[in-house]
Amino acid sequence: MAQQNRNPQAGEPDAGDVLGTYLRSQATAFLRGLRLHEESGADAAESSDAARSLRGAARRISGSLATFRVVTQSSWADALRTELAWLSSTLADEHAYAARLARLTAALHRLSGSPELPAQRGSAGSLTVGSTRAGALLDRQLTLARTRAHSATLQALGSSRFHAVADAVALLASEVPLDAVAARGRVGEVLVPLAAVAESRLSAAVSALPPIDAREATPSPYDADHDGLWHDVRRLLRVHRYAQEVLGEDVSRSAAAGEALDRHRDAAEAAAASAAAARTPRIAPATAYALGVLHADQRHEVEAARTDFQHLWLREPAGRTAVTAG
Amino acid sequence: MAQQNRNPQAGEPDAGDVLGTYLRSQATAFLRGLRLHEESGADAAESSDAARSLRGAARRISGSLATFRVVTQSSWADALRTELAWLSSTLADEHAYAARLARLTAALHRLSGSPELPAQRGSAGSLTVGSTRAGALLDRQLTLARTRAHSATLQALGSSRFHAVADAVALLASEVPLDAVAARGRVGEVLVPLAAVAESRLSAAVSALPPIDAREATPSPYDADHDGLWHDVRRLLRVHRYAQEVLGEDVSRSAAAGEALDRHRDAAEAAAASAAAARTPRIAPATAYALGVLHADQRHEVEAARTDFQHLWLREPAGRTAVTAG
Repeated sequence: MAQQNRNPQAGEPDAGDVLGTYLRSQATAFLRGLRLHEESGADAAESSDAARSLRGAARRISGSLATFRVVTQSSWADALRTELAWLSSTLADEHAYAARLARLTAALHRLSGSPELPAQRGSAGSLTVGSTRAGALLDRQLTLARTRAHSATLQALGSSRFHAVADAVALLASEVPLDAVAARGRVGEVLVPLAAVAESRLSAAVSALPPIDAREATPSPYDADHDGLWHDVRRLLRVHRYAQEVLGEDVSRSAAAGEALDRHRDAAEAAAASAAAARTPRIAPATAYALGVLHADQRHEVEAARTDFQHLWLREPAGRTAVTAG
Repeated sequence: MAQQNRNPQAGEPDAGDVLGTYLRSQATAFLRGLRLHEESGADAAESSDAARSLRGAARRISGSLATFRVVTQSSWADALRTELAWLSSTLADEHAYAARLARLTAALHRLSGSPELPAQRGSAGSLTVGSTRAGALLDRQLTLARTRAHSATLQALGSSRFHAVADAVALLASEVPLDAVAARGRVGEVLVPLAAVAESRLSAAVSALPPIDAREATPSPYDADHDGLWHDVRRLLRVHRYAQEVLGEDVSRSAAAGEALDRHRDAAEAAAASAAAARTPRIAPATAYALGVLHADQRHEVEAARTDFQHLWLREPAGRTAVTAG
């Protein structure tokens, strides 16, 4: 990733060298992830790890092609990005449903650890029975969704569309289609300004976020209206981080802030899943009560993740030695 | 309250003077509150204000008699404290139910201000219909409890037991039954050490509180097991504050910390009321869901109040000029 800085005496690498090195290494990671996924067979953990590295590489190729589009053959880059976006979202679903179920099950376990009024088990005011039923309901709904996503993934991986993507990435691993002029430019004159554009898009999205007044004066912690703005920031922060990776910069701050936004997204979707489960016809009041508690709990996690992000991203982090320019 | 310090040139007031001044002023406040309550008739706001000042004076007399018991005739003090405790708790109920309903109604309004998925109104996953029904249910239950408490208050105020308390306080307004020896002591040698005992009881109770790790690693925000420890701290902090009032000390810090503990108590009881309402037989799932969200919301207010208390009480408050010795 930082290969271009290893030997500055040997002549400065140009923009194409630096971007090409990054794209080739990500293409190689993609192909390795694909091979591991094919070899993993029925091993769910191995399969999941392989799919994760496959998705990570796909996102990095796609993200760096978006930022540094003009350094590559743009029409090729645009076409590949479209296909990688399709693949990433297809691969992401199965993992997302499994992670959502794990998150909600853990939260229910935590919430029902010390049920209020344990003497009155079975009534709606107690979490014990309600949370057991809510857990079973969520397990049923999310396992079904996960199974469907698994089938969709298998179907996608067997499709000719996927094989075309894999072929394009295999080509990328050996030869990156660059723009003849822009790729010859210096890193500081070509890549750095393009990375700055990605960063300014992120800054604008962060500025557009509604203010968080800790817990004071917030109209409602269950207000999902602003989730989309935060999800936008998450996507832009990821693109910014990949640009930092291309340039060999320190990504510790953007990675930590990104993790807070991952938690934000996960909690928001878990809250929505809990609300959706509560709309199941003919559920018992105790089940609905537990789902209400769970929904509120996850929305509070959403709020906590927002606060974490603001601490990590907007304030000067205390005790950190190396941070990239904000 | 600080009368004893007005004219230090005229000779230092003794312990009996200082305590007597405070008790007489509180007895006068009690009698004024009682008169206002009798005159308020059907005016709910006036009646409520009068009851509040009556309760405040009763608590102050009772609290300072507990701390400075040995400076007074102890058997008289013990008997009066028992009667004032009975009166305070009787008077407190009506207000508490009204305040609880107001708190829960406001929270429901806030929570349903921006319902998730407004398109699916009427289903359990939406707060809109559920919160309306939950609000109606809570209104019914808490208004009934309040009406019963109102009857109990009227009955108490008409009882011979109450007239005996009012007579005892009327006597106190003119003449405080003091211990002949202890009352002659110097303030610094009698009242200050007794106040220090009350403060050390408070410190011990604060030390016994389970740690709050902000929101990290807390087993469950819905864990009501520790509420009692916090309610103990609230009572001891109040006794400490009244001792500070007797000594003419600055109570701003203990008053602010006490307000956090009042919010803690109110939120804990509101959460319990929401859980209790969810145990009503045959309620709709949407109602139970809204009550679950409401319960979780109030338990988060409990957590927030605990954090506030710790900031106000345990850390050095920033930007304050005058604080009493912790």
